[in-house]
Amino acid sequence: MKKITGGVCAPKGFLAGGIRCGIKPSSQKKDLALIYSRKDCRACAMFTKNKVKAASVVLSAENIADGKLRAIIANSGNANACTGDDGMKAAKRMAKAAAEILSIDPKDTAVASTGVIGVPLPIEVIEKNINALKDSLRDDAQGHADALEAIMTTDTRNKEIAVEIEINGKPVRIGAMAKGSGMIHPNMATMLCFITTDAAIAHNALDAALRRAVSRSFNRLTVDGDTSTNDMIVIMANGEAGNEEIGITNDERVMKKEEESGFDIFYNALEFVCIELTKMMARDGEGATKLVTVTVTSALSETSAEALAMSVGSSSLVKAACFGADANWGRVLCAMGYADAQCRNDTEFDPEKTDVSFKSKAGEILVCKNGQTSHFSEEKAKEILSQEEIEIIIDIKQGTECVSVWGCDLTYDYVKINGDYRS
Amino acid sequence: MKKITGGVCAPKGFLAGGIRCGIKPSSQKKDLALIYSRKDCRACAMFTKNKVKAASVVLSAENIADGKLRAIIANSGNANACTGDDGMKAAKRMAKAAAEILSIDPKDTAVASTGVIGVPLPIEVIEKNINALKDSLRDDAQGHADALEAIMTTDTRNKEIAVEIEINGKPVRIGAMAKGSGMIHPNMATMLCFITTDAAIAHNALDAALRRAVSRSFNRLTVDGDTSTNDMIVIMANGEAGNEEIGITNDERVMKKEEESGFDIFYNALEFVCIELTKMMARDGEGATKLVTVTVTSALSETSAEALAMSVGSSSLVKAACFGADANWGRVLCAMGYADAQCRNDTEFDPEKTDVSFKSKAGEILVCKNGQTSHFSEEKAKEILSQEEIEIIIDIKQGTECVSVWGCDLTYDYVKINGDYRS
Repeated sequence: MKKITGGVCAPKGFLAGGIRCGIKPSSQKKDLALIYSRKDCRACAMFTKNKVKAASVVLSAENIADGKLRAIIANSGNANACTGDDGMKAAKRMAKAAAEILSIDPKDTAVASTGVIGVPLPIEVIEKNINALKDSLRDDAQGHADALEAIMTTDTRNKEIAVEIEINGKPVRIGAMAKGSGMIHPNMATMLCFITTDAAIAHNALDAALRRAVSRSFNRLTVDGDTSTNDMIVIMANGEAGNEEIGITNDERVMKKEEESGFDIFYNALEFVCIELTKMMARDGEGATKLVTVTVTSALSETSAEALAMSVGSSSLVKAACFGADANWGRVLCAMGYADAQCRNDTEFDPEKTDVSFKSKAGEILVCKNGQTSHFSEEKAKEILSQEEIEIIIDIKQGTECVSVWGCDLTYDYVKINGDYRS
Repeated sequence: MKKITGGVCAPKGFLAGGIRCGIKPSSQKKDLALIYSRKDCRACAMFTKNKVKAASVVLSAENIADGKLRAIIANSGNANACTGDDGMKAAKRMAKAAAEILSIDPKDTAVASTGVIGVPLPIEVIEKNINALKDSLRDDAQGHADALEAIMTTDTRNKEIAVEIEINGKPVRIGAMAKGSGMIHPNMATMLCFITTDAAIAHNALDAALRRAVSRSFNRLTVDGDTSTNDMIVIMANGEAGNEEIGITNDERVMKKEEESGFDIFYNALEFVCIELTKMMARDGEGATKLVTVTVTSALSETSAEALAMSVGSSSLVKAACFGADANWGRVLCAMGYADAQCRNDTEFDPEKTDVSFKSKAGEILVCKNGQTSHFSEEKAKEILSQEEIEIIIDIKQGTECVSVWGCDLTYDYVKINGDYRS
């Protein structure tokens, strides 16, 4: 697997573009994006589990139900959520406008929105500028960059990646973009993620790969515990790479792990793409100064390790201690201890057998041994925790499972960003 | 029911005291407290559900298992948590020291600790000063005040209350003190709450009253979602009021609500005491500038109303918006929407039938009507949200249940307090 450039335009047959149409008159940034495949695509998606869903989420779930897509149209500056029937009408008009310029079926179009909630979407300015959006389509890195800019809100960094792998001797590419500063922002922005691939892959294999990759990446991201009305991840596969179609194999050599299947190669690349984007989002958490990785090792099950790690990574006290470079390992144990009470699953650990270490490029230090202080150097611990990327490693000495989750520190700026008045 | 002074010393037969013994050499405040009943008490307690429990929690649970207590000894400055076998030995020595000066059985002594975690408790300084602690015992408001000071850590306000009720013509008193700045602080302090009463009450009635009152007060407090290793609430009832013993009645007139039972009178007073302390804790949340009450009305069940209200009250985004006096009602709906996904129970509501209002002494304003903006005055909303006590009222128009929960805003100072280095 190698990293390449071009984002969602890196795989063959995909175009992208972005323009400013003026959804938020006060903003000068691009706000309308389009991603388009020249050929039919297999497509899968996952959506927010929030009961309050934006119109775009409801409509896109309907449109993707048949497993096919040709295009994604997305806007920033307005979430089109809590906007009632008019909101759904606007979302449908958005799909229709995109479909018309591309001469495709509106039902093959996904719609995504991000921005302020509860404000009517100015659909007219989108319709008025739809031809300019078509004109912005390009099959190169610039097309990708324009689309990416148009979906960003308070993001301070680009979240993009593309990789190339080889399946049956054919180069296969996966490209992706995401937005999301944590999960949220001033007015409830969103995590949006669009992935393209030229792999030929069966629909059930694509779906299985996406679900598993998301469960091991975005679902292990914790920034502030809020889950938006608009979260969406979509993957489109157009088969242009010409590889033998990837299926969920039951080939005996593969089952025995003697050989890597096409599915395994594809899955590993997709998981890598999703984890890299997850880290970029954690690092760009609102107000964050640090990427904090929490790793639980030697757990009895992946579920248990994940629950413990998420409880630690979500703790406001642990996050504030990371900001202050305070080696307060007691907060780590405490957060593990209440994981169950907070209804995270089946956590199994013995505090008196738990070790905690802090690690960064400045070194690694054991701060808690078997549930008690290791009488460590506070100075060294502070140096380690003062780096921009830090890891909390928790060894519970029970089994063989290891899970990492990603988050950030809790800073003054988080409060500032989210406490500021909307207007 | 009338409010009276004297705190835990208000009920007959209770003494309290507090001294500085130097658990944290750097601090000049009192750090060791004692509460004592001249007569035998019925006693009940509830403890943290955190799997990582301080030695004091484990020992006190053992000692109270027989339903009896005579004294509570408590220290601040050290949580005696994550301290292994030595920690348990220290907790036992603390109980023994208190029992010796009071000539009672160590098993009739509860022990509580709050402060830094993972540091050995300097039990010698407690033992050395135990006679001074005995000498500090008084049966008046000063005794209560000394004990209260000795259990406080980062609390910025006293949390205390006492009330008098009448049962069968006899005055009955309940007095209480609590500490807890939220649930936590710099080094994982704790919620501690000690309640005394001179009521004569059967053990099962006392237990039922405590459990229900806690479920409707402290369990509806949300400051930062962290749950400490040391949380403890203890109630002692010595029967000195001379009322007819309160039981869990099955008197027919009471069951038909024709008459208020002694249990009802006692329970209502206890619930009032617990709710008042809960509000004091929410108001004193770390860095908090506002008490935020979230009320869900017209729910199908109490469980559902509580789950929705807790999800809103716990949302970092809602809390930050309260700090900024931002009428961002979309965040309220969003937090309700993910209550289920966060494993809170059985929430049932229809976003499109939900109304949201903000209320304070500056007035009340409807900001969301049936899930959409009510086109309200932003200026008026900001004025309302700028007060020190604000309420978010959510009408889900389904049933008759109404639940309030209490929290605070999320401020720069929360981050500052919890990000600061321990030493």
